[in-house]
Amino acid sequence: MRILILGIDGYIGWSLALYLKAKGHEIVGVDNGRRRLRVRDLGGESLTPIMPYPKRREYFGHYNFIDITLGRDGSDLPALLQSFNPEAIVHLAEQPSAAWSMASLENASITQQENIVGTLEVLWGMKEYCPSAHLVKLGTMGEYGTPECDIPEGMIPEKCLGTPVAGPICPMKGLPFPRSAGSFYHLSKVHDTHNIIFACKNWGLRSTDIMQGVVFGLNEVDDPRLLTRFDYDECFGTVINRFCVQAIAGILLTIYGSGRQTRGYLPLKDSLQCLEIAIMNPPKEGEYRTLNQFENIYSVQALADRVMRAAVEIGVLKEGDIGAEQILNPRKEAEQHYYNPAHQKLFDLGYKPTTNIQLEITNLIHRLIPFRRRIQSGMAMPTINWRR
Amino acid sequence: MRILILGIDGYIGWSLALYLKAKGHEIVGVDNGRRRLRVRDLGGESLTPIMPYPKRREYFGHYNFIDITLGRDGSDLPALLQSFNPEAIVHLAEQPSAAWSMASLENASITQQENIVGTLEVLWGMKEYCPSAHLVKLGTMGEYGTPECDIPEGMIPEKCLGTPVAGPICPMKGLPFPRSAGSFYHLSKVHDTHNIIFACKNWGLRSTDIMQGVVFGLNEVDDPRLLTRFDYDECFGTVINRFCVQAIAGILLTIYGSGRQTRGYLPLKDSLQCLEIAIMNPPKEGEYRTLNQFENIYSVQALADRVMRAAVEIGVLKEGDIGAEQILNPRKEAEQHYYNPAHQKLFDLGYKPTTNIQLEITNLIHRLIPFRRRIQSGMAMPTINWRR
Repeated sequence: MRILILGIDGYIGWSLALYLKAKGHEIVGVDNGRRRLRVRDLGGESLTPIMPYPKRREYFGHYNFIDITLGRDGSDLPALLQSFNPEAIVHLAEQPSAAWSMASLENASITQQENIVGTLEVLWGMKEYCPSAHLVKLGTMGEYGTPECDIPEGMIPEKCLGTPVAGPICPMKGLPFPRSAGSFYHLSKVHDTHNIIFACKNWGLRSTDIMQGVVFGLNEVDDPRLLTRFDYDECFGTVINRFCVQAIAGILLTIYGSGRQTRGYLPLKDSLQCLEIAIMNPPKEGEYRTLNQFENIYSVQALADRVMRAAVEIGVLKEGDIGAEQILNPRKEAEQHYYNPAHQKLFDLGYKPTTNIQLEITNLIHRLIPFRRRIQSGMAMPTINWRR
Repeated sequence: MRILILGIDGYIGWSLALYLKAKGHEIVGVDNGRRRLRVRDLGGESLTPIMPYPKRREYFGHYNFIDITLGRDGSDLPALLQSFNPEAIVHLAEQPSAAWSMASLENASITQQENIVGTLEVLWGMKEYCPSAHLVKLGTMGEYGTPECDIPEGMIPEKCLGTPVAGPICPMKGLPFPRSAGSFYHLSKVHDTHNIIFACKNWGLRSTDIMQGVVFGLNEVDDPRLLTRFDYDECFGTVINRFCVQAIAGILLTIYGSGRQTRGYLPLKDSLQCLEIAIMNPPKEGEYRTLNQFENIYSVQALADRVMRAAVEIGVLKEGDIGAEQILNPRKEAEQHYYNPAHQKLFDLGYKPTTNIQLEITNLIHRLIPFRRRIQSGMAMPTINWRR
């Protein structure tokens, strides 16, 4: 299949490009290297020594890894959509950090502008040049927030939530389930969601909007030069990845607040499997579909416990050596809350979690140990206060 | 009260500034004159011969009518918020045309970028410099679209919609009622709504988000130089105003499609009254409140009939002279649909519709007749196709 990956230089983008290429698909990727610059601006660097941007372009072929900045006047995206005529477009080319978006007005504005206008350009280009293509768009489970009711997959179901058997019909059935996002980054994804729903309805485009949980782990490669980037700073790192790095460095695992916050998680290889399933099972023309993409839900405290257990088993830590510490939560969020999001559709389409989370964490720590000397342990501490 | 009006040079902004100033409030306004430029770019002009932008600034006082473009690096808004320390901020400074936003990718992007980033700047500035101020933000009834159920005021009510007496509790109560906007302009207002809800929750700001119906009419002034602008082109004109101009020009009233589309409407003077009520009755700190602001709902066909009746009564038309024509609808919208939006809160706060719509239309035609030689009758025809 002809698949266009927007954001090919990113954590998931690079992994997905290699994964789908190995399966025989024709891949073209687009990026602008901005993620690398932003991590560097914070004083950080990928823990894995990834190939320089030009080397990756060379490796993938300059005609298959194209430098384009979405949402800019005179962008080359329209020409690419015409020449490559993709059957699927996986859109991962967004500013992905919630903490970064909360650091300043400038960051909040850049996040919303880049993400929204970039997606508008993709939608408009599809309408003009490849209206039958399937847009697979990366959203986030964080769009839903933590409402005090069950979370469906995207739209309000016919039966009132919480009455699965023979309950009353909800008068709002078919409308988008209300979003309660908790950062300007998460909100940018909510805005994308609404724009995409409209484009599907108004122009007959088709799209799968992925509400993805928090991803962790590394891609599986024979050649270590092909490893994907691995961030553990407060902005671009996510919680399990950051905990694993802290355990290896022998420093306290930083739990924001009480650690009872519960979210959906999945290993990177499950993310790739799920994205492939979405690509291979497109919705029909004009259809907007949401998939809630995660393996299971866990509390932050439970994840810290699992990471410490794995670290002790492997022997990078001795029992009692370090621990996890509850630090002042920089985010304003409910720390104890109801959380019951549906995630049935991907299982129905054939998603099989590849292993269990404890094994994945153990495996990840093993794979990160060779890079322990590269750890800058100060990078993992939060400095951005979301509240004020 | 110290009131900051963002968008003071606009249709509502100018009218509101004069109205509140006459009531003794201390008014500072902000604009950048962009609306004038955009109307001119389309080849149009306000039907009323309004004062040039510099003259209005002079009339109002340069320190009370400040030229600022929101959402730009180095904007002067933060300094103004500090020095003026407004008690209320009325935010009308957005690109307001749905048709304009649908004309091209560039227009869609500009609309969403300007509106969203401008509002982010206002929110961030309030957090930093005037966290107790009350943001009165102009949204639109169009955010809701035309769902197949009753529309509440902003949030999902406790009782399931459609069961006002003793129905079951809705598990989604308190979440934002799902938005189904029908243009990139309307979507920009939806995005603002979500951002404002978050700012109130996260930073404790207070805001009234006005879901306003379609406004028509002219402001009431003794000195004709103080008239507000009056647009009737396909982009910046709205339907009743456009119909009145078509009737005076003796050309067919252009009804988009079947004319059964039903929306909420209100005269300009009711809009001013309602905005004043909102300002004088602020929500408490941290509260986000929605007001659905319109007098009543009407179908487009019913409005065309009223305009023609008024024109015949006044004598600008003879019975049978012209009529209304159903033209191909450039918009993709349900032409026959359920529509039952709540609008009780403003009535509870004291809103009294000043007169009936038929009298308002008659009055408006009377007041527009002196300007009939200025009508460019071609401006009212739609040329932008929203569907493709």
